Amino acid sequence: MEDIGITASKESEFSEWYTQVVLRAELADYAPVKGLIVLRPDGYAIWEMLQRALDVRFAADGVRNGFLPLLIPESLLGREKDHFAGFNPEVFWVTHSGDSEVGDRLALRPTSETLAYSMYSKWIRSWRDLPLKINFWNTALRAEIKGTKPFLRTSEFLWQEGHTVHATSREAQGQVARMLDVYRDVVEQEIAIPVIAGKKSEREKFVGAAYTTTIESMMPDGKALQMGTSHFLGLKFSVPFQVKFADRNNREQFGWQTSWGISWRLIGAMIMVHGDDRGLSLPPRVAPLQVVIVPVYFSDKQEEQVVASAREACRVLVGSGIRARVDDRRDLTPGFKYHDWELKGVPLRVEIGPREVKSGMLRTTRRYDGEKSDVPAGDAAARVGEILAGIQSAMLERAKKMLADMTHDVSEYGALRGGIGRGGFYRVGWCGGPDCEEKVKEDTGADIRVIPFGSGKPGGECVVCGGPAEHVAVFGRGY
Amino acid sequence: MEDIGITASKESEFSEWYTQVVLRAELADYAPVKGLIVLRPDGYAIWEMLQRALDVRFAADGVRNGFLPLLIPESLLGREKDHFAGFNPEVFWVTHSGDSEVGDRLALRPTSETLAYSMYSKWIRSWRDLPLKINFWNTALRAEIKGTKPFLRTSEFLWQEGHTVHATSREAQGQVARMLDVYRDVVEQEIAIPVIAGKKSEREKFVGAAYTTTIESMMPDGKALQMGTSHFLGLKFSVPFQVKFADRNNREQFGWQTSWGISWRLIGAMIMVHGDDRGLSLPPRVAPLQVVIVPVYFSDKQEEQVVASAREACRVLVGSGIRARVDDRRDLTPGFKYHDWELKGVPLRVEIGPREVKSGMLRTTRRYDGEKSDVPAGDAAARVGEILAGIQSAMLERAKKMLADMTHDVSEYGALRGGIGRGGFYRVGWCGGPDCEEKVKEDTGADIRVIPFGSGKPGGECVVCGGPAEHVAVFGRGY
Repeated sequence: MEDIGITASKESEFSEWYTQVVLRAELADYAPVKGLIVLRPDGYAIWEMLQRALDVRFAADGVRNGFLPLLIPESLLGREKDHFAGFNPEVFWVTHSGDSEVGDRLALRPTSETLAYSMYSKWIRSWRDLPLKINFWNTALRAEIKGTKPFLRTSEFLWQEGHTVHATSREAQGQVARMLDVYRDVVEQEIAIPVIAGKKSEREKFVGAAYTTTIESMMPDGKALQMGTSHFLGLKFSVPFQVKFADRNNREQFGWQTSWGISWRLIGAMIMVHGDDRGLSLPPRVAPLQVVIVPVYFSDKQEEQVVASAREACRVLVGSGIRARVDDRRDLTPGFKYHDWELKGVPLRVEIGPREVKSGMLRTTRRYDGEKSDVPAGDAAARVGEILAGIQSAMLERAKKMLADMTHDVSEYGALRGGIGRGGFYRVGWCGGPDCEEKVKEDTGADIRVIPFGSGKPGGECVVCGGPAEHVAVFGRGY
Repeated sequence: MEDIGITASKESEFSEWYTQVVLRAELADYAPVKGLIVLRPDGYAIWEMLQRALDVRFAADGVRNGFLPLLIPESLLGREKDHFAGFNPEVFWVTHSGDSEVGDRLALRPTSETLAYSMYSKWIRSWRDLPLKINFWNTALRAEIKGTKPFLRTSEFLWQEGHTVHATSREAQGQVARMLDVYRDVVEQEIAIPVIAGKKSEREKFVGAAYTTTIESMMPDGKALQMGTSHFLGLKFSVPFQVKFADRNNREQFGWQTSWGISWRLIGAMIMVHGDDRGLSLPPRVAPLQVVIVPVYFSDKQEEQVVASAREACRVLVGSGIRARVDDRRDLTPGFKYHDWELKGVPLRVEIGPREVKSGMLRTTRRYDGEKSDVPAGDAAARVGEILAGIQSAMLERAKKMLADMTHDVSEYGALRGGIGRGGFYRVGWCGGPDCEEKVKEDTGADIRVIPFGSGKPGGECVVCGGPAEHVAVFGRGY
């Protein structure tokens, strides 16, 4: 018999535990090419729910979806020099089609700024065409030489990339901020993970951006994870790509640009933050299956009644918009089924046995903390809906507590240097100098994950050089 | 001033007309790499609506979505020999990542049978795992050496590919038939194009299939277009890819497989069938914008009233689920706006002027035939909904009539040979012999598009050799 449960400990073997959960909960699997993964239906369904959550918010902001092809000519990719230098080492190159050599080598899209803006320069004529706001759901390809980690480190990943052009710098910067806030909202509301929002340092910004804003979260192993970024590009691409418009006075101006993206990395974060030694634990809002109903019986006569009640309960739940199903597999024990659905992370289990049929109550068990409660079958839809909402908010609260526990305010360099090996975020005063940032990196391997919004000028000293602190910087070792 | 309307005639310059409509209605544009196109938001929105129409039907059949990566090792792609030989000339090859050579060359997916089935062989253990039915929304890449035609001939195209495994041949063939029927239904209901459903000949089947079923439609220029295919793969892939399962008696069996796909080619068909010399004409069910409301006024005082009424009408329509908007651009004439929205194919225009405000009526004009009617503003939601449904069915009826007019029953070889240059479908008796099929191809350039379902044994003679006809074959020249 194959080992189908989780055998590694989240506490002591985090990396192996993560891989087991991904594979055994059947979210993803390794593809034949090193560095690539396949998503199985449960994994992809979570992605589709994140897509819907984002699409609704993008549409409300006037962003529409489009499609860009995969292949970018080398000459186009190289037009913005910093950008090209940043991506070049990890680009996949097409050199042949059939037996013929292609002329200019073709890059598999590592990101689409260059391609999108070569199109935008054709489409934009006047201020009437602005703002232009298009989002693209696709995959990006960047060769990963280190070991593959599903959802976190793969050579192809599902993501979205939004690209906008505006008439003014101010309007573009507003777009950057709103999109970051959309990400924060989706991450908190859908996958129940709190984040720290702010700016990246110059060293850590997107290659080609004027500045980068980010949402960062903390994983249970003490490593930081970048959850989404929103970039102000200024005129850095519009000048080389000639993205220009005639303003209301018919004067030619360059467009102010933004780009922003999240990837399936969010699914990896969700697995790490919420999973446990029994497997996956899904926040109800993104669970492909929210409620599994397990009939429990000891005779054929009981089976008929119990399964009928289970199906009726399921019908009621599905009718009220809850994603529910009955596990009526005949030759498996209830205990086996419980473990199976716990491994797969289904947020709520409902048991129906002869006792429940008689009493008209349903016995529910929450996946995330095992809490049980009895719900009147007649009121199942409303009550189960409440329980699911309760699970969602409890999972976010627990994750908020974890983030707070793992975020340390330190003012001594020794405390930073000594602490960072144990993981977590370190909030410190920073003079803003690249040398101090670099020194921390050299001494500890940690970088500035984020300069939180609203932290202002902190008033103390730089934790490294002792000069006046210009910013609060949050250091951590990242994925 | 740029030429923004359609200047080519659909009747006399079909190909140029088609390209103008695609570009000027802003559905798509050419990418920097030859053979590739970009979809602009209106083009992509139509694709998203087709996706939703299919996803609902797939889910009802128990099909779930998944994700497969882009890159397939050459060794894996080559495992089914006929399949490889068929695709090899048009495969794009990745040879480098960054500055390093990759080992085994990597193909950009021309289709994913080989990759999917190498995964399926790991995932399937017993009859309990069957049927396995997964669909993948992605793009396929096949180098096109002839000229690019947006949606019809491009080196990368959006599509879906479904891949299933079943315990029995009978069950798999049922899947093949149901999926083809899903395609027929979506094509008729959503884009209002009638099709002929049936089988492909041995010569025309998918490389690697046991047999291929197809839906074929006729374009106004007399050329046939394959709209979707559903393949019975038999054991042709399960043997080389070792897709096996233990049956209920614990005996090892090979799985019976199917694959099926449609692409954005459907959008091309829709443009060709329904468009006219004023531009695009969209069936309401797939129109990103179904109703445009144009306020008409001659003074500032009128403007205020008229625009307020237009917004109120729009609010009512949107509230009842109709995709509507007000075109309140200030410095453009109503006439300019009418032409603009006709070019973009919006199915219904509503004009509101001082007269309409006074009478409480809305003046509507159908894009597809120009028919006008007055609708009481108080009953706008219901009445406009009816008008849109009426347009949808009238467009399908008109297309059905075109298909009937362009389908010819002939029994003399001379009539086939002489007629085919004028375009259309030719329904003939066929002995089933590949030589007769080949002779038609050589003499006329036409091939067997489809052997219609239910046409049985026709009872006459083969139009080529005069032997007994075994099938009805529909010949035509294709895209």
